Amino acid sequence: MAELIEIDGPSAADDPRLADYRDLRDVTLRRSLESEQGLFLAEGEKVVRRAVEAGYRPRSFLMAPRWLDGLADVLDACEAPCYVVDEAVAEQVTGFHVHRGALASLHRRALPPLEEVLDGARTVVVLEDLVDHTNVGAAIRNAAALGADAVLLSPRCADPLYRRAVKVAMGTVFSLPWTRLTDWADALLDLDRRGFRTVALTLADDTVPLEDAVAGADRLALVLGAEGHGLSPRWTATATVRAGIPMDRGVDSLNVAATAAIACHVARSRRA
Amino acid sequence: MAELIEIDGPSAADDPRLADYRDLRDVTLRRSLESEQGLFLAEGEKVVRRAVEAGYRPRSFLMAPRWLDGLADVLDACEAPCYVVDEAVAEQVTGFHVHRGALASLHRRALPPLEEVLDGARTVVVLEDLVDHTNVGAAIRNAAALGADAVLLSPRCADPLYRRAVKVAMGTVFSLPWTRLTDWADALLDLDRRGFRTVALTLADDTVPLEDAVAGADRLALVLGAEGHGLSPRWTATATVRAGIPMDRGVDSLNVAATAAIACHVARSRRA
Repeated sequence: MAELIEIDGPSAADDPRLADYRDLRDVTLRRSLESEQGLFLAEGEKVVRRAVEAGYRPRSFLMAPRWLDGLADVLDACEAPCYVVDEAVAEQVTGFHVHRGALASLHRRALPPLEEVLDGARTVVVLEDLVDHTNVGAAIRNAAALGADAVLLSPRCADPLYRRAVKVAMGTVFSLPWTRLTDWADALLDLDRRGFRTVALTLADDTVPLEDAVAGADRLALVLGAEGHGLSPRWTATATVRAGIPMDRGVDSLNVAATAAIACHVARSRRA
Repeated sequence: MAELIEIDGPSAADDPRLADYRDLRDVTLRRSLESEQGLFLAEGEKVVRRAVEAGYRPRSFLMAPRWLDGLADVLDACEAPCYVVDEAVAEQVTGFHVHRGALASLHRRALPPLEEVLDGARTVVVLEDLVDHTNVGAAIRNAAALGADAVLLSPRCADPLYRRAVKVAMGTVFSLPWTRLTDWADALLDLDRRGFRTVALTLADDTVPLEDAVAGADRLALVLGAEGHGLSPRWTATATVRAGIPMDRGVDSLNVAATAAIACHVARSRRA
């Protein structure tokens, strides 16, 4: 079971054992710290629990005493230390008031190979260059909730294990298989070779209705880009089919999470 | 045309003419200020433009010099003063760095009566007790984009004209008709009397698939509650039909904006 280690006193916030939890709002610093150390953070009892249950190995936990009970079973089953601090120290270390109480630092794992993620998958969501952590998290959450079997990320997509993405995804990044594509240029052609119909959701003119675009597909890849830019010309051109969602009142694009929700819902009940 | 009034000097930020723009991050203060004064704020060139074009009357504008050109035509057409300040003063007054440049303070209008909002409407979205401004804005944006004719808000829903909601809605709160319901308890029964089939999106057990729930409805009201709590028992019980969206991977609910996107998309192509 996790050893409970109280850290207090005037220099508690400078304790080197708390280094994993430092300055959580500083995106640049966190990016380099987390990639160099191979760690990521989970925040909140539910998300911490889901990360551990999904098999991610904790490096440590950090929480105020009042959160210990709720996670007692999780802590019992782990060997990593649990640093117990008062809320003021937690705030000093992390740089914000930790509303959701518990934090955990966990070891990243090597990303699974594409073959493994696609094994048995009938519907996958492919995200191109979403640089915003909130959008990555929200798209993954909707994909997980609405029947997608996996998510594939282009090389420039934001990190799904970044704290903000994990939080918005409500921990579904731990249960839904996902990996990163290494070959951006030929990604859709490669999926095509693997038997997927690639359906690009786009604002282009030559689109077919989404319902028709997905009909009859055994294996289906729903391809989504960032709002604003949309999909790259390369991906737009190499997709099997371009599908549109009609829009009214001068709204020129939908948020990618909303698009993912609609696309996955329609794909799940696609005609045979 | 709008008179340009430069405000500078050491006490510029305390100038009483800038009172409408004070402490924009202080939700409590803004709520009372905006309701007492009957004003709301629009932020960013696009949103300011949409508000004015929709007929909302400006009280004043506030911007740094570099934003004047982009809004020149809007300012030309208005009588309200435009206060020109440097970015440091704008930040001091509003309490944050105004990324999007232009701000406008506009007069609220009396909310339209329900009859007017429903006139000719075939599909409306009804929101119950969404207290989060982001969710209200995102749900309205998706409703506007995806073919809804109007939005109705329960008495406890957050204000769609609050700055954050306006921003997330990308100005669609100005073009999509909406109003607030005054009679919460009988709201759905009243819609029923007006010829609407009220479809409650819920996690309850006795649901029918959304596609079936909307099929054949001439007038349709899609009824959505907040994530977590969901719809009240009263609204769940008084709806014509309860519809569900199947969910996977232990995800227990969808964000209301995602639900609105799916519901509106499905409703738009409902079977006759």
